[in-house]
Amino acid sequence: MADAGSLQRLDVLFRHLTPGDADGQNGLVVAPTAARDVSLPRFDTNVMETYLDELSSVKEDVYETFRHRPNLLPATLEGLSKEEQRELARQQLKLLLKAGYSPLRFYVHDIKKYYYLGELLSVVDLSFTVKMGVQYSLWGGSILNLGTEKHKKAYFEDIDKFRLPGCFAMTELHHGSNVAALQTEAVLDIATDEWIINTPDDGALKWWIGNAAEDGRAATVFARLKVPSPDGSGSLVDHGVHAIVVPLRDGAGNVLPGVEIKDCGYKVGLNGVDNGSIRFSGVRVPRENLLDRFASVDRSGQYRSPYSASRRFAATLGELTGGRVGLICSSLGILKGSLTIAVRYGATRQQFGPANAPEIAVLDYSSQQEKLMPMLASAYAIHFTSRFLVDQFAEAKRTKEEDVIADVHALSAGLKAYVTNYTATALSVCRECCGGHGYAAVNRFGMWRSDHDIFQTFEGDNTVLLQQVAGLLLKKYKERFAVAPVTATYRYLRQWAAESLPPNPLVSHETSVRHLRDPAFLVRALRYRTGKLLFTLAQRLSKHTRRLGQFHAWNKCLSHILTLARAHIESVMFERFLDGVNNCPDADCKKSLKVMAEVFALQRIQADILFRNDDYVAAEKVKAIGRLLERLRAEMRAQAVPLVDAFNIPDHILRAPIGLSHQDPYDHYLEGAGWTATTSLTT
Amino acid sequence: MADAGSLQRLDVLFRHLTPGDADGQNGLVVAPTAARDVSLPRFDTNVMETYLDELSSVKEDVYETFRHRPNLLPATLEGLSKEEQRELARQQLKLLLKAGYSPLRFYVHDIKKYYYLGELLSVVDLSFTVKMGVQYSLWGGSILNLGTEKHKKAYFEDIDKFRLPGCFAMTELHHGSNVAALQTEAVLDIATDEWIINTPDDGALKWWIGNAAEDGRAATVFARLKVPSPDGSGSLVDHGVHAIVVPLRDGAGNVLPGVEIKDCGYKVGLNGVDNGSIRFSGVRVPRENLLDRFASVDRSGQYRSPYSASRRFAATLGELTGGRVGLICSSLGILKGSLTIAVRYGATRQQFGPANAPEIAVLDYSSQQEKLMPMLASAYAIHFTSRFLVDQFAEAKRTKEEDVIADVHALSAGLKAYVTNYTATALSVCRECCGGHGYAAVNRFGMWRSDHDIFQTFEGDNTVLLQQVAGLLLKKYKERFAVAPVTATYRYLRQWAAESLPPNPLVSHETSVRHLRDPAFLVRALRYRTGKLLFTLAQRLSKHTRRLGQFHAWNKCLSHILTLARAHIESVMFERFLDGVNNCPDADCKKSLKVMAEVFALQRIQADILFRNDDYVAAEKVKAIGRLLERLRAEMRAQAVPLVDAFNIPDHILRAPIGLSHQDPYDHYLEGAGWTATTSLTT
Repeated sequence: MADAGSLQRLDVLFRHLTPGDADGQNGLVVAPTAARDVSLPRFDTNVMETYLDELSSVKEDVYETFRHRPNLLPATLEGLSKEEQRELARQQLKLLLKAGYSPLRFYVHDIKKYYYLGELLSVVDLSFTVKMGVQYSLWGGSILNLGTEKHKKAYFEDIDKFRLPGCFAMTELHHGSNVAALQTEAVLDIATDEWIINTPDDGALKWWIGNAAEDGRAATVFARLKVPSPDGSGSLVDHGVHAIVVPLRDGAGNVLPGVEIKDCGYKVGLNGVDNGSIRFSGVRVPRENLLDRFASVDRSGQYRSPYSASRRFAATLGELTGGRVGLICSSLGILKGSLTIAVRYGATRQQFGPANAPEIAVLDYSSQQEKLMPMLASAYAIHFTSRFLVDQFAEAKRTKEEDVIADVHALSAGLKAYVTNYTATALSVCRECCGGHGYAAVNRFGMWRSDHDIFQTFEGDNTVLLQQVAGLLLKKYKERFAVAPVTATYRYLRQWAAESLPPNPLVSHETSVRHLRDPAFLVRALRYRTGKLLFTLAQRLSKHTRRLGQFHAWNKCLSHILTLARAHIESVMFERFLDGVNNCPDADCKKSLKVMAEVFALQRIQADILFRNDDYVAAEKVKAIGRLLERLRAEMRAQAVPLVDAFNIPDHILRAPIGLSHQDPYDHYLEGAGWTATTSLTT
Repeated sequence: MADAGSLQRLDVLFRHLTPGDADGQNGLVVAPTAARDVSLPRFDTNVMETYLDELSSVKEDVYETFRHRPNLLPATLEGLSKEEQRELARQQLKLLLKAGYSPLRFYVHDIKKYYYLGELLSVVDLSFTVKMGVQYSLWGGSILNLGTEKHKKAYFEDIDKFRLPGCFAMTELHHGSNVAALQTEAVLDIATDEWIINTPDDGALKWWIGNAAEDGRAATVFARLKVPSPDGSGSLVDHGVHAIVVPLRDGAGNVLPGVEIKDCGYKVGLNGVDNGSIRFSGVRVPRENLLDRFASVDRSGQYRSPYSASRRFAATLGELTGGRVGLICSSLGILKGSLTIAVRYGATRQQFGPANAPEIAVLDYSSQQEKLMPMLASAYAIHFTSRFLVDQFAEAKRTKEEDVIADVHALSAGLKAYVTNYTATALSVCRECCGGHGYAAVNRFGMWRSDHDIFQTFEGDNTVLLQQVAGLLLKKYKERFAVAPVTATYRYLRQWAAESLPPNPLVSHETSVRHLRDPAFLVRALRYRTGKLLFTLAQRLSKHTRRLGQFHAWNKCLSHILTLARAHIESVMFERFLDGVNNCPDADCKKSLKVMAEVFALQRIQADILFRNDDYVAAEKVKAIGRLLERLRAEMRAQAVPLVDAFNIPDHILRAPIGLSHQDPYDHYLEGAGWTATTSLTT
């Protein structure tokens, strides 16, 4: 809270370094970075919003539902116990249902609306959205995707109406990512035609199960299916992990016999979600409770599946990736909210300025622009990519085409990892950009960061998901040469890399602005990076596998693998962003979108040492990119407020006093701190 | 929480890519990355601890004080109201005082012990440490450093004993960093020999003032000093910002007339510190309350100062940089705690593994090593640098040598910015490395991140502090050529850069391990980077200043300026780390320290594109560095647990169940969740 003095000292000492610059002149120079480089036309924020959100009427409607319910929109959750936060999330969900929203129906019949709600409601309260995700994407989704008609019939209405709150009981104390190693058991008792569910040891306690601590009446429990051997020996055959519906509580909320549930206690955030741990001791459920879309067991104990064990396992987990799409949308909602606050505040908060002149807005500092403008561009990139993903997801559900399904799985995994990590970092940067006032709980950054943090881990740890993306890229490489003899695979690969993606010495030295802003150059550069990383990864894996075996070779190359996956996702994001630019019907909006797309790609090219190591981009070209980026960020800064206004998060939903639209950032902030209510402040 | 299946899928598809690798062989290959490369001898953790902590007896003593006070060491702060958290911090402080600690005495007579307590107590509770910082470094420090003998005499004992809780009332609603623009006024009334303190408008409300909301009995208020013009015209002369002691509450805790205080409410963290906002309306205090070390006003209203206005302002703020040293120590304490938990848990948590073999510890994944090992190395680097800083600080206080004082100011500013930013990032990474269980509030990452977050902003915004560092470097550059004629300054600079730090084409292609681990190479490379950045910055500033004026030129170059400052700090840190290596009397400890120092430097050289752009490091050399780093991280991993054990944070202070020493990470965790207490878990 000190340190202005030092800037003043710098003034003094710097004057000695630049003797030509007389003192009094500084205030007269009319050349702030932001103003000088402005060339973008002012666009209409309504036009931009309509272009971004085809369902903007849903936004209006659902946010209106909350307008007159201030008790459901508290200024902050700090100071509320976890029980109070859970009651709040429950009431928020009940209001939504009462207003006629039917989430599980949307999930089946209007998936775009379902995911859009995920984005919108995250800004209301992230516990609320995650509780919805547990109830509908996970508990409801497991019934719909892993069960058969009888299960849908039995549960659909009660799940949709939240009359049957349920759980997705997969994770155990000892196993999160490695689902195949889960230890909970479901043993078939042929005599009674029942499954007997058991928790064999501490490590197999179900852990972090959402809805379990208070609300859950039933759960989809992932357990190793053990059925008596057909040879009549009396031994059990372990068919691996399957999903079974297990009741947890009776209608009055009492935990059923054989079930023990403990509250997981306070978490870093999301304390409105009632996570619990569960132990099963000889719990019996009817044989029909097995969700039997991919495998079934008949009255005689005969196990049947049209799939191999590994295909079935993959299919079981694959059907659940829809939950990840929801996380991407919620994370995007938080990113938009966070940038809305940071940009609006940065445009009004003033600190320091030229000698004998007014202070300037902090957003006019190039350091602030360097932090926030690429982030704003990335939010738009994520916006267009997530919309594309949701479209593809709807398409995949409709057509059930294998190719589309595979693409959706890969993109949802990669984008979930990328976006949740990006938003997590952005929340910290935005808080810091808002200085001390960003640290007031009412301004929401801290709560969002705490709530959102676990998005990087649940529904697929980001590090694991990125490995899937890399694995699928390797598979595509292989398929490309499927017709060639196996032994020649690598030769072809090498040729492909050498011919299709050569660093061109002329292009690598080309520094004209026209070239640097050419989408063709940007697309090619990002694709080159992915191709190069993929090609060299395949080579390295092949080499190390011979010596170390597959597991350790993969482990040795993990850094390369993660880098490849991120590069691929950025390449996909940029191309979807370009679609978003090209399809824009409004000329003014299009110009702003184009500048942001350029900032998105150029920043990544500038930062990645791969381009320099390969001399794909010469040293002077990196410098030219740096200069151009500086200019483009300044152009964006001039449009930054309208660019976040286009997200159109209403003030009563955004709530952060320093980030409200078209208002002095201090007005509501003072009031919230008790000042204007009791004191006349203008003296 | 899904996604193991996909790894299994990858297994399948990858097998196709590597046809020579038969299935069953994988389990047989004895070559995990971590084990293969181990070459470091096991050191004695007690010897390492003794080397790190010359005051380790203080650690034992102060932590012992808390051993039997579990009520002062709650598992988590979640669910406690801010009032309850404040009472907790108060009780923690009172226990410390009762145990005979005398913080303000240490501050004056044993500064090393004072700062060491800051590191140690941060792991107890960060609100407690920050409250101590407010009371002793800020409130006490302002009396000692800005006041004169009469002030010390009046307040010392009461401050030390916390009988006179006080505030450091600098920041206002509208101004944090720009202290020179503060608006609170202190007008001299010659008739009554008093200052009249006023808050002229909303923007001048004192804001975020620690100790103000509940405890503060008085405050050092920073206000514009206005005294009647000596010309007798009746007009007031504004002498700029000075510090004055203003009583806030009477002995019974009632707010005094003319003072209004509001609670700043919930913050992102540090809710155990009672921050408030304050309004002054015609509050009168005796003339002697001006802290008059650097400027005084006599009975006749005559203002006197031996300094120019800018020197005085700098001196006023400069005397307060000691607070920053405390923040560095506290931040280091949190970094050590966080790494202790993440490393111990990572060494025991297992997930996935080779086919037909047990699962491996997550710390054996190279991706985990890439995240955590450089962080552990950096913690040691920060340790040695902060110890050096504290020594220098003590030296500066003792000798009052201008050179030492200037060095301490620069290093404390830069290190504060670097370390607090580093720790903030590390907390997020460590949480993520601990997966879902890292998200349990009891495992402390979330609370630490929320509490520590503001360390990046208060006592000097990091972005502002880094600019100071760069400014001081520019000054040193200038001084180097002070004898040369002014016009030739830049020519000399250019020559200096060209001659002293040339990229040597032979060295830039040298890739031997011996060379890459040579401290001389590493020191030279990091110094080269600083020199290059400094030289080019001076050139750019000179060029742009001619066109834009000084302020806008500085603004345009901000990215360059911040990069320079960080590069400089890393260079300093590495050299202090090398001192730490070289001075180590134990051969085994020394080997581990040396590897960490190498990882610290090599990682930064690998990551920084500057070395490539200048061809200081050729492309193949970067690759060789990458391979070496991989090996050194694996070596560190084998010693990682002893390396955090050497921090020796006792279990009762660390508390996180998954991070306790030599224990199964799940034992206490289960108990805390209510399992072992009520249920027999082994079936």
